[in-house]
Amino acid sequence: MKRIKVAVMGCTGLVGQQFVKLLDEHPYFELAALTSSSRSAGKGYGRALNWAVGGEIPEAAREMEVSETAVDALLKSQVKVVFSAVPAFLAEKIEHLLRAQGLFIFSNASTHRMDEDVPILIPEINPGHFALVRKQMSRHKGFIVTNSNCSTSGLAMVLAPLEPLGMKSVTVTTFQSISGAGRRGLAAMDIAANAIPFIKNEEEKMEGELQKILGQLDRHKIVSRNLPVNASCCRIPVREGHLLSIVVDFLKEVDVGDVEKALSNFSSVPQALKLPTAPERPVIVRQEEDRPQPVLDVHAGQPERARGMAVTVGRIRKKARSINLFALVHNTVRGAAGTCLLSAELAFQKGLVH
Amino acid sequence: MKRIKVAVMGCTGLVGQQFVKLLDEHPYFELAALTSSSRSAGKGYGRALNWAVGGEIPEAAREMEVSETAVDALLKSQVKVVFSAVPAFLAEKIEHLLRAQGLFIFSNASTHRMDEDVPILIPEINPGHFALVRKQMSRHKGFIVTNSNCSTSGLAMVLAPLEPLGMKSVTVTTFQSISGAGRRGLAAMDIAANAIPFIKNEEEKMEGELQKILGQLDRHKIVSRNLPVNASCCRIPVREGHLLSIVVDFLKEVDVGDVEKALSNFSSVPQALKLPTAPERPVIVRQEEDRPQPVLDVHAGQPERARGMAVTVGRIRKKARSINLFALVHNTVRGAAGTCLLSAELAFQKGLVH
Amino acid sequence: MKRIKVAVMGCTGLVGQQFVKLLDEHPYFELAALTSSSRSAGKGYGRALNWAVGGEIPEAAREMEVSETAVDALLKSQVKVVFSAVPAFLAEKIEHLLRAQGLFIFSNASTHRMDEDVPILIPEINPGHFALVRKQMSRHKGFIVTNSNCSTSGLAMVLAPLEPLGMKSVTVTTFQSISGAGRRGLAAMDIAANAIPFIKNEEEKMEGELQKILGQLDRHKIVSRNLPVNASCCRIPVREGHLLSIVVDFLKEVDVGDVEKALSNFSSVPQALKLPTAPERPVIVRQEEDRPQPVLDVHAGQPERARGMAVTVGRIRKKARSINLFALVHNTVRGAAGTCLLSAELAFQKGLVH
Amino acid sequence: MKRIKVAVMGCTGLVGQQFVKLLDEHPYFELAALTSSSRSAGKGYGRALNWAVGGEIPEAAREMEVSETAVDALLKSQVKVVFSAVPAFLAEKIEHLLRAQGLFIFSNASTHRMDEDVPILIPEINPGHFALVRKQMSRHKGFIVTNSNCSTSGLAMVLAPLEPLGMKSVTVTTFQSISGAGRRGLAAMDIAANAIPFIKNEEEKMEGELQKILGQLDRHKIVSRNLPVNASCCRIPVREGHLLSIVVDFLKEVDVGDVEKALSNFSSVPQALKLPTAPERPVIVRQEEDRPQPVLDVHAGQPERARGMAVTVGRIRKKARSINLFALVHNTVRGAAGTCLLSAELAFQKGLVH
Repeated sequence: MKRIKVAVMGCTGLVGQQFVKLLDEHPYFELAALTSSSRSAGKGYGRALNWAVGGEIPEAAREMEVSETAVDALLKSQVKVVFSAVPAFLAEKIEHLLRAQGLFIFSNASTHRMDEDVPILIPEINPGHFALVRKQMSRHKGFIVTNSNCSTSGLAMVLAPLEPLGMKSVTVTTFQSISGAGRRGLAAMDIAANAIPFIKNEEEKMEGELQKILGQLDRHKIVSRNLPVNASCCRIPVREGHLLSIVVDFLKEVDVGDVEKALSNFSSVPQALKLPTAPERPVIVRQEEDRPQPVLDVHAGQPERARGMAVTVGRIRKKARSINLFALVHNTVRGAAGTCLLSAELAFQKGLVH
Repeated sequence: MKRIKVAVMGCTGLVGQQFVKLLDEHPYFELAALTSSSRSAGKGYGRALNWAVGGEIPEAAREMEVSETAVDALLKSQVKVVFSAVPAFLAEKIEHLLRAQGLFIFSNASTHRMDEDVPILIPEINPGHFALVRKQMSRHKGFIVTNSNCSTSGLAMVLAPLEPLGMKSVTVTTFQSISGAGRRGLAAMDIAANAIPFIKNEEEKMEGELQKILGQLDRHKIVSRNLPVNASCCRIPVREGHLLSIVVDFLKEVDVGDVEKALSNFSSVPQALKLPTAPERPVIVRQEEDRPQPVLDVHAGQPERARGMAVTVGRIRKKARSINLFALVHNTVRGAAGTCLLSAELAFQKGLVH
Repeated sequence: MKRIKVAVMGCTGLVGQQFVKLLDEHPYFELAALTSSSRSAGKGYGRALNWAVGGEIPEAAREMEVSETAVDALLKSQVKVVFSAVPAFLAEKIEHLLRAQGLFIFSNASTHRMDEDVPILIPEINPGHFALVRKQMSRHKGFIVTNSNCSTSGLAMVLAPLEPLGMKSVTVTTFQSISGAGRRGLAAMDIAANAIPFIKNEEEKMEGELQKILGQLDRHKIVSRNLPVNASCCRIPVREGHLLSIVVDFLKEVDVGDVEKALSNFSSVPQALKLPTAPERPVIVRQEEDRPQPVLDVHAGQPERARGMAVTVGRIRKKARSINLFALVHNTVRGAAGTCLLSAELAFQKGLVH
Repeated sequence: MKRIKVAVMGCTGLVGQQFVKLLDEHPYFELAALTSSSRSAGKGYGRALNWAVGGEIPEAAREMEVSETAVDALLKSQVKVVFSAVPAFLAEKIEHLLRAQGLFIFSNASTHRMDEDVPILIPEINPGHFALVRKQMSRHKGFIVTNSNCSTSGLAMVLAPLEPLGMKSVTVTTFQSISGAGRRGLAAMDIAANAIPFIKNEEEKMEGELQKILGQLDRHKIVSRNLPVNASCCRIPVREGHLLSIVVDFLKEVDVGDVEKALSNFSSVPQALKLPTAPERPVIVRQEEDRPQPVLDVHAGQPERARGMAVTVGRIRKKARSINLFALVHNTVRGAAGTCLLSAELAFQKGLVH
C-alpha cells in the first residue's frame, strides 16, 4: 500500500509535536513536510524545538528541515494532506487557500469549526458527518475537516454513548491541564500551586461545539442537538489531561449500571475498521473509588498507537434523576492531534484522500 | 477586661497551628495550655512541630510545654475553653468527658456535628443556633459547639445570603487543597502534578451538614433545610484554599446583579458586634474575569486579625434559571480554626463562656 | 519629617510590585509616580496588574494612574528618587537620562552594575561603596546605585560575614524559584514538576558581581575581591525564594561553631542606624536538620517592614577544610526591591537624597 | 531457553512496581511470585496497589496473588532468584535467611551493601566485583548482590568513565525527586512548591558507597577507592529523576572535549553481552544549553527495555582544573530496580544463577 504524503503545519507547538509523534511509521501516511513560523524555518526539526511530548523525536523527523508556513512551500512539498496545528488567526489566513489548491486539511484550529459545510469530526461519534466534505468539494478542490475543542472532545465521548438513555441537560466543571494553553501560553508564576477559574472562550466552545458534534445530518446539513450544557472551566497545575466533573440529568431515572454498560460497550466505526489510531475501547470505565487521575490515566488506550485516545470514566454515582461522574481526556491526543489523525484515517479508508 | 484561659487540643496539626496563630494576643482569650499526642508531649511547642501556617510561631506559645491530650492535664491547666483540633476518633473519646467537667468545647472534629443538641455554628449564618447549648448545659455542665466541614463552610457562606432569592437546588464541584488532608494526610507521590477526584466522606458531609447549618431553630430543635445539594469533590495540588464551582438553580429567574448585591451586602451578627476575628465583609465579590484564585485570594479578609475569614466569589454568570459562580474559602481558617474561634468570641460576648 | 517623593519605574512586574508594597506608609519616602509600558499606561494601578506579591495592593497606590515610562513623565511628577524595576534593555535607554536630570536612581536592572563609578550596594556589606556616587555627581547631576543579581545577594550575605575566617574559594549550586524569571518569564509547561539546569547569564553574574560587592574602596575606585567562585544555576518549581547549596573552602581549618557565630552575629550599618527596612538580624542560622526551606523561611526578617530581608542559613557542616551550608534568600525582596530600598534609606540618612 | 523463576519481594512500592514492569516478558526470567506486607497479602496484585510507574500493570502480574513476605512462602513458590525491594529493616530480617536456603538475592535494600563479601554492583562499572559472590557461596548456599543508593548510581555512572582522566575530588549537590522517598514517604504539604535540603543518610551513602563501587578487587576483597566526595542533598517537587550538579576537580587540567568523549564513548560488559536491560549508550551527553531536565530526559535509554537506564549529562563546563556538569538519573530504574535486574542478567549470562 502506497502511503500518502502529509505535512504538519505548526509543527513546533505541543499539538504539532503530537502529530509528528503519532505519524511516526504510520501505515497510511508519510510525513513529508513540516512548517512553522519564520523563527524556526530553515532549521532541522530537532533543533527547532524542545521535544515535550515524551519519548524521543522520531528519527524520520529529526533532521527534516522546517519550512515557513506558507501555501507555496506546502504545494512544493507535494503533500496531499495537511494536519494543521497553527493558531486560529493563522488558520484563518491559510487553510482556505490550501483547500482551494485541492489539499485535504485536518485542522485543530477553531477557525472553521462552525462553518456550515465543515464537520467537527469525532469518528466514533459522528462519522456520517463526513458527508459534509462533498459539499465543500463541490465548491472547492479540497476540504477542511476539524476536530473539536479539547475539553469538548472528552465531554462528547462520554455523552454520545448515553444518548439512548435520554438526556435532559448537562452540567460540567473542568480541571484543565497547562498543556491545553500551549507550549508558552501560560506563565509559570500564574499557575504554580494555583488554580485559575477562567479559560477564554472555553465554556462557550464546550456548550456550542457539542451541539454540532451530536447533531443529525439532514440533507447535507447538520441539525443541532440542542442539549442544554452548562460549563465552568478552570485551569489547574497538571501537565497533561483534562479532568471533567460531569452531571447528566436524564429525562427519566437511569441506574449506574445502565450508564456503565453504555460507556463500556461503546464501539463504533473506527473500531470496526480497525483504524491504526483507534483505541480498542474508546471509553474505559474504572471501578476504583479514586479514578480517573491525570497522572495515572492520561495515556489510556490500546494498542500502543492509540495511547491517549481512550477516555477514562470513574466514580459514576446516582443522585435522583442525575448521574454524576468524572472523566479524563488526553487534551493534546484525543482532544487534538489524535482525533484529527483518526479522521484522516477514516477518510483514507473511505477513499476520500488519495 | 480579664481574658479567659483557653487550651488548644491537638496543637501540632495544621488546624491546631491556625488556632495558636489566631489566638496570638487575642483580646478575649489567653492561651494557657497546648495538648498533643504523646510523641510531642513534654516538648516546648516550638520544638514539637514544623510551623507551617506562615509567619513565626507566636512568642507566647513558642516555649510553652505541650502536654498529652487527656482530661486530667486540661483540668489541671484551669482553662475554661478548649479549642479542639484532634482527629474524629480522639474527639469521640475525650470531648464529652471535658464537657461533663464543665468545659466549653469549640471543636473542628466531625464527631458531634450531627448530635441533636450540638450546633454546627457559622456565626454569620446561624448565630441563633447557639440556643442549643442551653439544652446541652441542662444535661451536662459544659457544652460542645462545632464548626462545619471545610468545604461546607465555603458553600454555606455563599448560599446563606442567597436564601431570600429562593433556591431550588445546588450543584457543586470542589477543587480542594492538600492542606485539607492535614499535615501528613496526603502522600506527595499521589498528588504531585495530579488531581484526585475522591475525598472520603466529603461529598456526604457537604450535602448533609449544609441542611443543619441552614436549618431553622424551632422550639430548641433544628429543622433541616432540605435543599438538594449534589457535590463532587476533588483534590488538586494547591497548598491552601478550597475553590468551589457552584451552580444554583433558583425557583424563579434571578439576575447576576441580584446575586452580586446579596453577596456583597451580606453582613451579620459578628460584624455588628465587631467580633475580633470577624471580617468586615464576610463575602467579597471580585469583578476580574479570572478570580478567585487560591494563591491570590486565600488570605482575603480585613482587618489583619480576620485574614482568611472572607470568602471570595467571582465569575457570577447567569444560565437560564441558574447562576454559576466560583467561590474560594480558606480551608483551615474560615473552614476550621477561624470559624471555631469566631463562635467562641460570640459566646464570650453573649456571656456564655466566662 | 518631610517625606521625599519617589517613583517606581516598571511598576507592574514582580519587583515593581515589591517596591510598591515596601513603600506603603514608608517613613522616608512617599510614592508619587508609577510608570510602566504603554500597555498599562493610563490605567489605575489596581487595574493594570494581577497583584502577585501577597496581601492587598496598598490603598495609596490602588487608584494612582500609571504613566508610560519616559523622562518627561517622571520629571513632571516632581519625584527626586526613582526605584527602577525595568528590564535591562530599557534601563539602558533611560536611567542615564534621568541621572542627567538630577534624579537619584536605585536600580534593580543589571545595566550599570559594572560601571566603574556605580556601586552594587548591599548596605550591610559595603556601605562605604556609597562614596562612588560622589564621583558620579561630579559629572552628572544625579546618581545611579544598583543592587546585585538576586542569587548573588544571597551568596554575598553569607560570604561577607565569613571574610575574617579567610576564604580560599567557593562552589555554589542554586535552586532558583520561578519568580526570579519575572511575571511572565517562564512558561508553565517548561517548569511544572521539572527542573531546568540553566539560567541565562546567571552563573556569570554570580561569579562577577560578587567580586565588586566584596571589593575594597581604594581612592574612589573599587578593587575587586578576586575570590574564585564556581556557580551552577538551576530553576525549580518553587514560587519564591532562591535556595543555595554553598561550599566554602577556607585557607585554614575552621569549625562549624566559628561559622555559626560569624553569621549569627553579623550586624552592620543598617542595623545600627535602625533603617526602616533593615532586619534586626540580617542572617538567621537555624538549628533544625532540614532548614532553610523556601515555603517556611522565605519571609524571614523582623520587624514586619523587613519581612523577606533576612537570609536564612542551615545545615552547616564541616568537611576537611570546607564548610557546607544551605542558604535561602527572598529573591524579589532581599535579592531585588528590598535591598534597593535599603540603599535609598541609607542615602536618606546620609543626606545624599533630599 | 528455559526462563528462571523469580520473585519480587516488596512488590507494591515504587521500586517493587518497577521490578514487575521491567520483568514483563523478560527473556531470562519468569515472574512466579509476588510478596508484600500482610496488608496486601491474599489480594490479586492489581487490587493491592495503585500502579504508579506508567503504562498498565503487566497482564502476567495483574491477577497473580500477593503472598506475605516470608521465607516459607518464597520457598514454596520454587523461585531461584529474588528481587528485593523491601525496606532495610525487613531486609535485615529476611535476606540472609533466603540466602541460607540457596536463593540468589538481588537487593535494593541498603542493609548488606557494606558487607565485606557483598558487592554493590553496577554492571557497567564493576562487573568484576561479582567475584565476591563466590566467597559468599563458600559459606552460604546462595548469595546477595546489592545495587547502590539511587543518587550514588547517577554519580558513579558519571565518575567511572572519568577515572582515566585522573580525579582529585568531587563536590555534588542533588535535586532529588519525591519518588525517591517511596510511595508514601513524603507528605504533600511538606514538599508542594517547596524544596527540603535534607535527606536522611543520603549524603553519607553517596560519599561512602561510591568508594566501594569504584574500588579494586584484590584477592577477593575490595580495596576502597578513597576519592574525596562532598555531597549536599535536597528534595524538590519533581516526580521522577534525580538531577545532580557535579564539580570534579582533576589532578591536572582536562578539557571539556576530553570529558565529553569519555562519557559518550563509555560502554562496558552489559553492552558487549547485549544484556536485555542494558542501554546501548549508558551515558548520553546532550549539547543543548538547558539539559538534562527530569521531565524531558528521565526515560533516556534505548532500546525500549532499557528506558530509564541511561544517565543523561549536559552543561559540561570547564573552570580552572575543575569540570562542572549536570547529570540526571532515573532513581527507581537506573538507581534501583533496573540496575538490580541488569546484575541478575549478568549473573544469568555467567551461569551464576540457574
